[in-house]
Amino acid sequence: MSEITVLGAGSWGTALAMVLADNKHNVRLWSHRKEQVEEINSKHTNDLYLPDVKLPASIIGYDSLEESLIGIDTILMAVPTSAVREVLRKLVSFVDRPLTIIHASKGMEPGTFKRISEMIAEEVPEHLLSAIVVLSGPSHAEEVSCRQITTVTSSSTSIKAAEAVQDLFINKHFRVYTNPDVVGVEIGGALKNIVALGAGISDGLGYGDNTKAALMTRGLAEIARLGTHMGANPMTFSGLTGIGDLIATCTSKHSRNWRAGNMLGQGHKLDEVLDNMGMVVEGVRTTKAVYQFASTNNVSMPITTAIYKILFENESPKEIVDELMTRMRTHEMEDLRDFASRS
Amino acid sequence: MSEITVLGAGSWGTALAMVLADNKHNVRLWSHRKEQVEEINSKHTNDLYLPDVKLPASIIGYDSLEESLIGIDTILMAVPTSAVREVLRKLVSFVDRPLTIIHASKGMEPGTFKRISEMIAEEVPEHLLSAIVVLSGPSHAEEVSCRQITTVTSSSTSIKAAEAVQDLFINKHFRVYTNPDVVGVEIGGALKNIVALGAGISDGLGYGDNTKAALMTRGLAEIARLGTHMGANPMTFSGLTGIGDLIATCTSKHSRNWRAGNMLGQGHKLDEVLDNMGMVVEGVRTTKAVYQFASTNNVSMPITTAIYKILFENESPKEIVDELMTRMRTHEMEDLRDFASRS
Repeated sequence: MSEITVLGAGSWGTALAMVLADNKHNVRLWSHRKEQVEEINSKHTNDLYLPDVKLPASIIGYDSLEESLIGIDTILMAVPTSAVREVLRKLVSFVDRPLTIIHASKGMEPGTFKRISEMIAEEVPEHLLSAIVVLSGPSHAEEVSCRQITTVTSSSTSIKAAEAVQDLFINKHFRVYTNPDVVGVEIGGALKNIVALGAGISDGLGYGDNTKAALMTRGLAEIARLGTHMGANPMTFSGLTGIGDLIATCTSKHSRNWRAGNMLGQGHKLDEVLDNMGMVVEGVRTTKAVYQFASTNNVSMPITTAIYKILFENESPKEIVDELMTRMRTHEMEDLRDFASRS
Repeated sequence: MSEITVLGAGSWGTALAMVLADNKHNVRLWSHRKEQVEEINSKHTNDLYLPDVKLPASIIGYDSLEESLIGIDTILMAVPTSAVREVLRKLVSFVDRPLTIIHASKGMEPGTFKRISEMIAEEVPEHLLSAIVVLSGPSHAEEVSCRQITTVTSSSTSIKAAEAVQDLFINKHFRVYTNPDVVGVEIGGALKNIVALGAGISDGLGYGDNTKAALMTRGLAEIARLGTHMGANPMTFSGLTGIGDLIATCTSKHSRNWRAGNMLGQGHKLDEVLDNMGMVVEGVRTTKAVYQFASTNNVSMPITTAIYKILFENESPKEIVDELMTRMRTHEMEDLRDFASRS
């Protein structure tokens, strides 16, 4: 039995706190919203993010970051990508021992094009960091909170740390596998949200399952292209955090990124869509980050470019998607060569 | 403009005939059912297979195989896998010149474990065969007949033949790419139906999108494992005929294999399900073929084995799926090593 602090009480942080509580760990769930913490502690619910779900009583809400970290050596970060650095900068002043930092966010930083684990390594001094582990995979929080069978990957450059996190989380419903390829796991998790926006746009335009399957296939090839450029193992994109998470995100009503895309495809404007969602749509910022990086580094990312034009240059979804689908290459292997394994 | 004979007036044969007709080719559509041929020629419909769809008048129905082949040098076969040899044996007696045989069936022969193109090469004498080309990809007939944007692969050991078939079919809605890996294209197309049965079973049991995404991910790894064993290029499984077709078949209401699995998951028996479908569910026979081959050749196929037990050994879908999902390997890369590229 361990004592673990989960930072971020959105749907994913809360669902992961529930898995830890099911495994008999004591869980501190931190949120900066006082009324949310009161709800967690008095009613054992988190209605805004996981309606109709009862939280185990062993999850204790904290609104003080400092208190939530006292005596702790393992934390799980589940905050939006845009909040990662801010939370890290605050927490380091409260920590007095080396931490294992597990993160479960899916995004890239615009401007720097840093992965979450790179931001952690930059913000947390070496003597306060024992390991960084990424938890990622096809995992809608709503289903995890109902104990539906879910598979995820625990990834770290330290196999010992990845296995320790596997041991913390694994149970009958929540299956955890290790993968040493941190770069591939983080790239896959972040970039699938771009393709999910595209899949939603295609569905919103009234296009069929054939079109969506083609878009997702080429989307995965595009993710693998950028990933191998960044040093990922191409095989990772054929696994849970690649194709697995892509499928879960592009084909499920639970996916916020798909829902946002769907509204865009139906003709709504980005501001309107984001107002309507109420939660962070990571794919929007990730599209910007990847578009900037790919343009500067000459990596061919036609789907990302198309989504960027729809999101930020007010282009017509229908024209952009039609152009994208009819301007593909002639020989399929040209699109797939980035899946060739590292030697 | 060419004259092409399509053998088989099911939904897929008819939809492909429509693509050819849209491209201004003359199309002969053969069916052994006289009343269906009469419907095609008088009403320009094929209501049993493609309700509410109007066929172009340039598609002419034939109920005589012999007449449908007079003066023809390109045929497209779109018959169930179980009928391929029978149709080939009949047609060779009527043919007097070398044929390009395009096929669009997705299955493997139980007992022999032959692919469709291998059956063609066995049944058609060399002097009557100029090329074999496989047309495959994520392509529900219902959507192709509505001219939804669809992508497929034209695959042949002869790149010239693959490109000729690409030229025949390609248009604004129907996008055709070439891939020289016939083995991988045929294996992917056939085996995704097994995974679609599994996805349907999972959905029928009330399991969520997380479970289905995991099942599909491991299903693709299993397909790649068998495919590389048979000599396929592992990259093909990351393309349109691998992940693309898998997605289209596992996540669409148009998929018969998914629908059959869904009924099995809800507790119906196989006989009842097959009676109810009215069309061929290729995945059932393919499961038998692959199970037999994998058992004899020691290829690990846990999903195929699980589906086989549900279909043919009357095992409980819930117990089998739960066992399958909780008995996975610990390290993800063990599952993925078959995606490593051929050297």
